[in-house]
This record gives sequence, structure tokens and C-alpha cells, in this order.
Amino acid sequence: MSDMKEYQKVSEEQHKKVQVNPYGPNPSDYLSNVRSFQLIESTLREGEQFANAFFTTEKKIEIAKALDDFGVDYIELTSPVASEQSRADCEAICKLGLKAKILTHIRCHMDDARVAVETGVDGVDVVIGTSQFLRQFSHGKDMSYITKSAIEVIEFVKSKGIEIRFSSEDSFRSDIVDLLNIYKTVDKIGVNRVGIADTVGCANPRQVYELVKTLKSVVSCDIECHFHNDTGCAIANSYTALEAGAKLIDVSVLGLGERNGITPLGGLMARMIAADREYVLSKYKLHKLRDLENLVADAVQVNIPFNNPITGFCAFTHKAGIHAKAILANPSTYEILSPADFGLTRYIHFANRLTGWNAIKSRVEQLNLNLTDDQVKEVTNKIKKLGDIRPLNIDDVDSIIKDYHADVSTPRMGATEGPAIVDEDQASLDNVKRPRLN
Amino acid sequence: MSDMKEYQKVSEEQHKKVQVNPYGPNPSDYLSNVRSFQLIESTLREGEQFANAFFTTEKKIEIAKALDDFGVDYIELTSPVASEQSRADCEAICKLGLKAKILTHIRCHMDDARVAVETGVDGVDVVIGTSQFLRQFSHGKDMSYITKSAIEVIEFVKSKGIEIRFSSEDSFRSDIVDLLNIYKTVDKIGVNRVGIADTVGCANPRQVYELVKTLKSVVSCDIECHFHNDTGCAIANSYTALEAGAKLIDVSVLGLGERNGITPLGGLMARMIAADREYVLSKYKLHKLRDLENLVADAVQVNIPFNNPITGFCAFTHKAGIHAKAILANPSTYEILSPADFGLTRYIHFANRLTGWNAIKSRVEQLNLNLTDDQVKEVTNKIKKLGDIRPLNIDDVDSIIKDYHADVSTPRMGATEGPAIVDEDQASLDNVKRPRLN
Repeated sequence: MSDMKEYQKVSEEQHKKVQVNPYGPNPSDYLSNVRSFQLIESTLREGEQFANAFFTTEKKIEIAKALDDFGVDYIELTSPVASEQSRADCEAICKLGLKAKILTHIRCHMDDARVAVETGVDGVDVVIGTSQFLRQFSHGKDMSYITKSAIEVIEFVKSKGIEIRFSSEDSFRSDIVDLLNIYKTVDKIGVNRVGIADTVGCANPRQVYELVKTLKSVVSCDIECHFHNDTGCAIANSYTALEAGAKLIDVSVLGLGERNGITPLGGLMARMIAADREYVLSKYKLHKLRDLENLVADAVQVNIPFNNPITGFCAFTHKAGIHAKAILANPSTYEILSPADFGLTRYIHFANRLTGWNAIKSRVEQLNLNLTDDQVKEVTNKIKKLGDIRPLNIDDVDSIIKDYHADVSTPRMGATEGPAIVDEDQASLDNVKRPRLN
Repeated sequence: MSDMKEYQKVSEEQHKKVQVNPYGPNPSDYLSNVRSFQLIESTLREGEQFANAFFTTEKKIEIAKALDDFGVDYIELTSPVASEQSRADCEAICKLGLKAKILTHIRCHMDDARVAVETGVDGVDVVIGTSQFLRQFSHGKDMSYITKSAIEVIEFVKSKGIEIRFSSEDSFRSDIVDLLNIYKTVDKIGVNRVGIADTVGCANPRQVYELVKTLKSVVSCDIECHFHNDTGCAIANSYTALEAGAKLIDVSVLGLGERNGITPLGGLMARMIAADREYVLSKYKLHKLRDLENLVADAVQVNIPFNNPITGFCAFTHKAGIHAKAILANPSTYEILSPADFGLTRYIHFANRLTGWNAIKSRVEQLNLNLTDDQVKEVTNKIKKLGDIRPLNIDDVDSIIKDYHADVSTPRMGATEGPAIVDEDQASLDNVKRPRLN
């Protein structure tokens, strides 16, 4: 048995060496771009298709600057042929001199392309529906027509010296042979990227992995992916696409887009930082995420969802006694994401009937009181009893603790540091607004 | 070339036969439970660990009944040792005579087990931390101690004739050899289910697939999975786990749970109905989803997130002209999920600058007016021009159309049916509340 233990110990150490982060890139994915991905930020294109969105020119410029400051690689804008103002706004943003490259998104048509290349963009994203559904009910064209149009538009845009992406629409319901044929063709004539789009938001991760991996074997250019979130898989599909060799992911702030939207910028940051913290921190100003989300949420008049990754009001709140105990000992036990990376703070919720004596003990210390463990356990039981009757607030808990403490001890000198437990009111202010809390 | 076309046509027909639904189960997953999954609904356990949650006995009973009516297979309750009221509530819910089996969730300890089996539950879910982190910072036990406790608790619960599940906690950071050893042991002594838990919410789909598939080769009992949503992958991980052979998924209404929660019931329904509509509709009353979510959201004082799958206010709203056109011709072009399955309606957003003439044409018909296509295109341009200046509402669009129409035509007889475009005000009422819309 002691041999076995010795073996296990050695084995564990070897294991740690091989894979320090179990959520890091899979070492067998040699084409993976999990550590070298780029973002195409589409709040000002896909996001404008969100039901509530109406961005003025000033608001578009404010958002574009904030995205640029955050560090996104590309900013995608609504087609200049959508309306006269769309065209003027596109030209205005191109003149801002941002670090991010500016793209606009057009139909695969020379009429659109001619307008797009004159706006001053760094690149054009071309899209056309290749599924049976879109060929029948949208544009009514067959694959040979689509291919011919694609070649004409691509060669025209390239002749202007700017980047060009060719994407299919509704890729997962398109015939795989049609898809690979057209991607191979456009790759040969020199597109910068080909795009896969889950336009209806129903693809699943393994399906994404297979299609991207197959496409990767056919083209030499970069692969970009666009995932809608109708079935809640947009973030996971994005991650899996990167594992399979895709390089660029389309995102928008809070995922704003048609229907319930696309891969959200913040959620993808959570996913990617769990895989490669160093790369993400080197490229993106994560501490500006909350302000960026608030800016866009205000512009389209929505609230940050209560359960939003990272910035949802409870994303770093720990409640059950068993969780609170371990978090106090070592935050990594229940937290891979560090709230400090995003300029946020952790919150241990101890004023409730699920609380444990470790959380109460920590509160006792914060209050600069002195109780033995047995005393803390006794006062915890009193708190749980009141918590059974009604919702508790911090004052309830503090007064129970103080009453109990009154006779048994004297205050210690010097307040202890209390980063693990913050005052509830302070958490509300410091963190993010709690929805509908009175 | 015509041979090629002929070949493609035949090939397309064959393709349709082989796989009617491209989002259906992968035919090569012979262990997949995508078509035979079960739900363990944990709003009254994991959901009670949500920061805002305080459920009275009456509210717990109301929620339990609603979940049972919806059709969930299991309802999981907070441990009866958490507080005296938790125990009383557990007993009360067991006495309701629901169709769903009632479970309670306890630590792997005889003290907890003895209380749990006396409450009247149909089964006990046992959990213990097996990761280095939890072994070091939570309970401080080694694997041989964990195994010994597990065997004692399992044999005790089995002796009472009720179901028993054994789950590790933080499974993806646990040593794979430790995990497989203990699962194999508990499977041999006859647990009903073993559980995998992504307690920190950082697992990714391919990682999940590998672990579940490996575990499936080691145990003969059912596999249950529990995914936190910190990195936005809980729904995708659940789906992938089912593909790999897991049978049961832990969910809660709106995903309520520790931090930003777990796999949401509604989001998983969206995912599963895209894969197998028939199975989902045969088991679950989807048209009650909205009421169920509203009940729980009110109880914990949060708003339904604007981008929630299915019940988010914009989940079935289509805006861009190119989308609206195709949706009007055939909803399946941009929609796999049918709003009618959930008792909801589709909404084509036509009062904005991204609108297209097909959407306006449909509105013209709804208004019982008669314009030629060229006239519709002309009036569409007028609408887009105003849409460039400020946000539009339905009245704006209607008055532009009516002004334009005044001299050129006369009203047709008989109103056309208008299921595709509904009045915006009506959509607000019929669908779900729009956050912060004035």
C-alpha cells in the first residue's frame, strides 16, 4: 500500500508537469489556435441587427473607440449599402485611425462591392447563402452562379489592395461537397479568409470540429467562424472551432445580434482565459470589459443579464457553506477565473441558511471579534435558524454575532484584512448592479 | 457539366435520406443518449445556492409542482441537514405525490445519509470532492478514506431500498486514475448512477466527451453530468456528454446556482429540440417553459435575460432585410426552433433602417393596402431614410406607407392572414417583456 501511495505521488507530480492547466489547449491538437486566436468584433454590424439597436453616428464612434481600446483585432461595420447613413458612418469610422482593422460586411454582389471599397475600409467580408434553404428562399441562385459571383467580387476587391473574406451562410445545412468546392476555389484565387457561419444557431461542438478540421485540410488561408446562440452553444462552438484550426471568431458585446445573438465577447474572454491566461491578458484589456458592456447595454437599452459570464452580478459570489469554506482556504478550489483579472472582486455570501461556520468565522474576524471555533459553530446555528424564517442581510448576521460575543470576549487589536468577504452593500456598488434587489 | 449537375442532384437526394436533420444525433455515436436523456432538475438545490435565492416552503412547493407538470424526471432538493426548515421542506415535497422522483443532495457522510433516508425521498445524490484542491482545502481526506466512506454510505442507502448516485466534485481536475478507480468500485456495489461534475465551470466539450466516453467503458450504471456555466459552455457540455453516453443532465430554471449557475433548463430544451424534436415534445410541456421561468425569476427577483434562449424577448425577432425576406418565404431559412412549439410567436422587425422591401411588402398586405413591387421599393427607401435619422416605431412606418398609398391605390377587400408579422405592441404583450423599452 505504501508503494502504491509512493507511485501515486510520483504519478501526480508527472501529471502536473505534463499538463499544468487541465483546461488548457489539448496537446494533441497541433493545428489549434487556442493560443493565437483573433477577434472580429461585430457589435456595429451583427449587433445593429439586434432588435433594440439604433446607433447614432456619435454612439458608433464611441463604441468603435472603446472596442479598439479593449484590443479587438478587427471591427466589422454594417454594409454601406444598407442606408445612406450606414455608408457615411462607415467612412467616418475608417477615418478615426484606430489600431483595429476596419471591415464591412456585404452581400456577394458587385453593386455592394463597388460601394464598399470606396469607404476606406481595410477589408471586406463577403457572404452568400449556400444552403438549400437560402438558395431556394433567399437569393434563388445555384452553386455555379454563386461561384462565378464570388470570383468576380473577390478579384475586384483584391485589385483594390484590401483584405477579402469569403463566407458561406448557413454552412452546416449546406452540401459539404458544394462548400469544399467553393472554398477551394476562392482560396486558390487568394482570399485572406474563408468563413463558416452557423446562421441558425443550431450547430453543436463536435459537428463544428469536424467541419473546421475538414476545411483546414482543403484551404491554406485563415478560417473565420460565426456562431449564433439560439441553442446556447456559441461560446463552446467558437472554442472548438479554434481547437480544430480556425483562427478568427466573430463576437459582439453581450452577443448582440439577430434573434438572441452570437458569441458574446465577454463570455468568450472567460472561455479563453481559462485556457490560456497569458495570451488573453497580453492582448486584451479585460479590466475594461465591464465598462464596454455597460456602454453598449445602455445604447440598446438592455440590462446586463444576471447570469452573464464575468460581469453578471453573481459571477463571483459563493454561497453554500461547503463552497465558502474552501474558497476562504484557497480561491482556486471553486474559481478558475480570477475576478481581479477583470477588475472585479469576489464575494462570499454568508447571510443565509446555507451558510457554514467557516464563512461565519471569517466574518467574526472581519468584525475584529474573538470567538473559539465551538463558539462560532454555536452562533452559526443561531444564524441558520433565523435564515430558515426569512431572508437575512448582513446587519442581521452581525447583530447576532455581536450579541453572542458581548459577554464572552474582548475586541482584538487591529482589523484583519478581509479581501475574501466584502460587505454586501459594498459588493453591490463595487461589482455590478444587482437586478431588482431592494 | 450536365452530368455533374445530375450527379449532384442524385447526391443531394441521397444525402437527405441519410440525414434529414443535420442537427440530429451523430449516427456514429452508438452510445448516444441524445434521444433518450433524462433531466435532474435542481432549482430547489443548486438553485437555492444562487445569491438571491430564498424560497419559502410555499414557494418551494409551487415550484416543485410546476417542474413536475413540465415533465422533469427528477427533482433534487437541498440537503435536509442544511437547516431544520430544509429538512421539513424536503419531507413536505416528498408527500406531494408528484410523478417526478424526489432526490436530496448530501455530502458523502453517514451523518447526512441517516437523515436523508428518513425524509421520504426516492433517492439520494452523494457527492465528494476528489480533486487535489478539494482534498487539500475542503475536506482534507485521501482517496482511500473517500472510497471507504463512499462504500459505507452507498450500502446504507441501498439497504433502505432507495436510489443512490455517487458523484465526484471538480471531476475535471481530479486524477483520472483515482476517478476511474472509485467509479468502478461504486458501480460494482450497485449504485444507480455515477456523476461527473464540472464544479468550477471550465470544462470544454471535447474534454467532456473524452471523460464521459472513458467512464462509459468502465461502469455499467447510468452516468449523470453537472456543468457550471462560468465559461458559457454548460449547454454544449451537456449535449456532448449525452453524445458520449451520459444519460442524465442536471439543470435548473434559468440555470440558477452558485456563481452564474449551471445548465439552464430552457437553454437545454432549445439544444435538445434542435436534435430530436419528437422526443422532447413527447416528454416535456414546452409551452409551460415561459411561465415556469417567470415563476422562478420572480421568486429570486431577477429579470429574464434579454438574450435568453427561447424566452428572451428577441429570441424569435428577425431584423435585417435579407433575413426578413427569407423568413417570410420559409421560416426554416433562419429558424430551426419553431416559436409555436413553446407557445410563442415570431416577430419580423420592419421598422428600422436595415429593413428590406419584402418585409415592407408584407406589412403593406397586413394593412390591407395594394402597391406594386416598384412602389413598395420606393416607399421602403423613404422608410430607410427616416430610419437613418432616428429609431422608428410601427406608427412611423404605417403612416409613411399610408401617405404614399393615399393616391395610388384603393383598399383591397378582406384582411390577409398575418402570422409572420405581428404588431409590435402585440408582440410585447404576447411574447415576453422587453427590458427597459419605453
